[in-house]
Amino acid sequence: MSASCPTLDDIVAAHRLLREGNPLVQCLTNTVSVQFVANALLAAGAAPAMVDNPEEAAGFAEIADAVLVNLGTPTAAQVASSRLASAAARAAGKPWVLDPVGAGGLPWRTGVAVELLANRPNVVRANASEVIGLAGAGGGSRGVDSSAQAADSVDAARSLLDRAEIVAASGETDHIVGSNGVIRVGGGSALLQRVTATGCALGALTAAYCSVAPTTVIGAVAAHAHVAVASQIAARSTSGPGSFAAAFLDELDAVNESTLRELVLLDAA
Amino acid sequence: MSASCPTLDDIVAAHRLLREGNPLVQCLTNTVSVQFVANALLAAGAAPAMVDNPEEAAGFAEIADAVLVNLGTPTAAQVASSRLASAAARAAGKPWVLDPVGAGGLPWRTGVAVELLANRPNVVRANASEVIGLAGAGGGSRGVDSSAQAADSVDAARSLLDRAEIVAASGETDHIVGSNGVIRVGGGSALLQRVTATGCALGALTAAYCSVAPTTVIGAVAAHAHVAVASQIAARSTSGPGSFAAAFLDELDAVNESTLRELVLLDAA
Amino acid sequence: MSASCPTLDDIVAAHRLLREGNPLVQCLTNTVSVQFVANALLAAGAAPAMVDNPEEAAGFAEIADAVLVNLGTPTAAQVASSRLASAAARAAGKPWVLDPVGAGGLPWRTGVAVELLANRPNVVRANASEVIGLAGAGGGSRGVDSSAQAADSVDAARSLLDRAEIVAASGETDHIVGSNGVIRVGGGSALLQRVTATGCALGALTAAYCSVAPTTVIGAVAAHAHVAVASQIAARSTSGPGSFAAAFLDELDAVNESTLRELVLLDAA
Repeated sequence: MSASCPTLDDIVAAHRLLREGNPLVQCLTNTVSVQFVANALLAAGAAPAMVDNPEEAAGFAEIADAVLVNLGTPTAAQVASSRLASAAARAAGKPWVLDPVGAGGLPWRTGVAVELLANRPNVVRANASEVIGLAGAGGGSRGVDSSAQAADSVDAARSLLDRAEIVAASGETDHIVGSNGVIRVGGGSALLQRVTATGCALGALTAAYCSVAPTTVIGAVAAHAHVAVASQIAARSTSGPGSFAAAFLDELDAVNESTLRELVLLDAA
Repeated sequence: MSASCPTLDDIVAAHRLLREGNPLVQCLTNTVSVQFVANALLAAGAAPAMVDNPEEAAGFAEIADAVLVNLGTPTAAQVASSRLASAAARAAGKPWVLDPVGAGGLPWRTGVAVELLANRPNVVRANASEVIGLAGAGGGSRGVDSSAQAADSVDAARSLLDRAEIVAASGETDHIVGSNGVIRVGGGSALLQRVTATGCALGALTAAYCSVAPTTVIGAVAAHAHVAVASQIAARSTSGPGSFAAAFLDELDAVNESTLRELVLLDAA
Repeated sequence: MSASCPTLDDIVAAHRLLREGNPLVQCLTNTVSVQFVANALLAAGAAPAMVDNPEEAAGFAEIADAVLVNLGTPTAAQVASSRLASAAARAAGKPWVLDPVGAGGLPWRTGVAVELLANRPNVVRANASEVIGLAGAGGGSRGVDSSAQAADSVDAARSLLDRAEIVAASGETDHIVGSNGVIRVGGGSALLQRVTATGCALGALTAAYCSVAPTTVIGAVAAHAHVAVASQIAARSTSGPGSFAAAFLDELDAVNESTLRELVLLDAA
């Protein structure tokens, strides 16, 4: 591993800070994922608040510990709220995460996502097609699932680093790209792709972790590692997507130092 | 127990009326909880209808047996619908419940909640911070979770009784406050706090029960007792939040006279 | 069986095409069901994309393989999107399904549903009260559940065949009505009525199947058969609505040629 790669000790410490700090995460997210995102934050040890109207979005970003902006089902009002909340988070020095769902495949929201980059998200979390789409490198995103591999998106991710501190491309192996290089997080479960909102939940957990971790890269890597370990354990007890979703929430809660040290797979590419 | 405290027989009778009556509950609720609220109503024995647009909200309140207004993720349109539905419920003599999510911590929606009190909800159901926030006694609500204990909110609850018949503050021990005193409902499970939308579901069940019970206080107490018993039984078979959520719905359905008589804990404070 | 009734071989072949084709289904659906609909599509073998804003709805209908329009919680913006997406689907020759939730009981959305019929849905999928309500034959729909039996709605369904190729009335026995007659699909589980969004999921699966099946009637029948078999198997392992919902998603995934051949019940009325 290179010097820039977080260690297992870093991940374990970040997880402890999350459980102790119970950070409040303001989520402006889509209607598909909103319940699962709230439950994933609660299970992992954070506190959700889905404040996404234009009247309250900016003010609440000053109270919250971190902000998630997810463009899964944007409405005109929610886009306005996303502008306000991300600008307020930026101004208040709160970490915020942009999850540009469907970027590349859907022109209107791609424009919104590009515009939001001006508020300099701490992390852009997306699948590979969305990272490529957001970078303007083409993409061919097919709605919200990804047809590209995470490794294919590293160049596109690098091109976004002038506006985002970290770009995290999720996939079979997650690629977390920063100015100091690429960290890969393995493990996880193929069942994550068979349940909606698992990626959105990862974005929310990334925001939560970035509010407690000493650096953004440790926060982003810890969130991805937490999800990878929880999903791997959940998949041991179930093969169906319905029971996996419940087991995944159980394991987001149950993850501890021991399972993190045993199961986290990460290296610097 | 004082004379004003509902008896176990009252709770059992209200539960039987709910199962027999299958009351139709119009819900204007938030995007986080809407699926869980519908499933909780179905499981408990009521019928949900999430009619929350301004075009239909008032007309449907005349058809429904009860109305829930929950301010978890208010939009401008939904606020307009909430005004219409609560006024129509009031005019038609249908019970309606106000769940002022985030009151105190978020000024815009606190103003909306105060305004809706003019339509005299039969029950205000909230956590302690929200009751305090709504009463204008301070509050310090941290988004949607509660940092105060239910017992701390009794004075604030009493100050709202000029506009609501009952104020129910949920917590480790629920405090149900009316002009005849305070009823406490114990039991329940700490896991209710680890799953989103359980409080919202309690608000919806309160509306359902108030449409079948002989008095508002019996309806409110029966709903809180039903949730306490179901959650207590569900927690026996699981310790994880994901599996608890499914088990809680199963037990909302399975609650019967025998489990109510065995497990309901209530007294008058 | 009459010549117009799909065979078991037709159902099995359609299911294989669904798993191989992984069709992309654009869903404009309600806030109650949106997560469950996405998970049901993923479990069954399709890909969901909840693109329901006016800015993107029409353009995405040209990319998607099929479109679902569900009127469960219509907003003004979503109604505009539904007009655009259904017209674009029609123009592009993509199958689209109309699920007129609450038609008959709620005048505003009934008008919207009637208007959308001008875009000639391939399938109208609804419960019996909604079919009757949409046909203007009265109805008395009580919100979103059905008080009429599917068999009672066959005449109303027939009267809609000048605007829809197939009208599918769900119930204890589903009645799928086309110009060549009525196909009945039996089996299923009474627990489907105890969980919200199972009907909405069936509408989405109908859209998915219609994009891969050789005819609309085979697509509609295969979707109803898939749901009936999955729910029947799920009900064997659970009697509670919460655990049934998870088991149903597991079984939507697990359905295969063997279980279809063993359990599908269909005949021509």
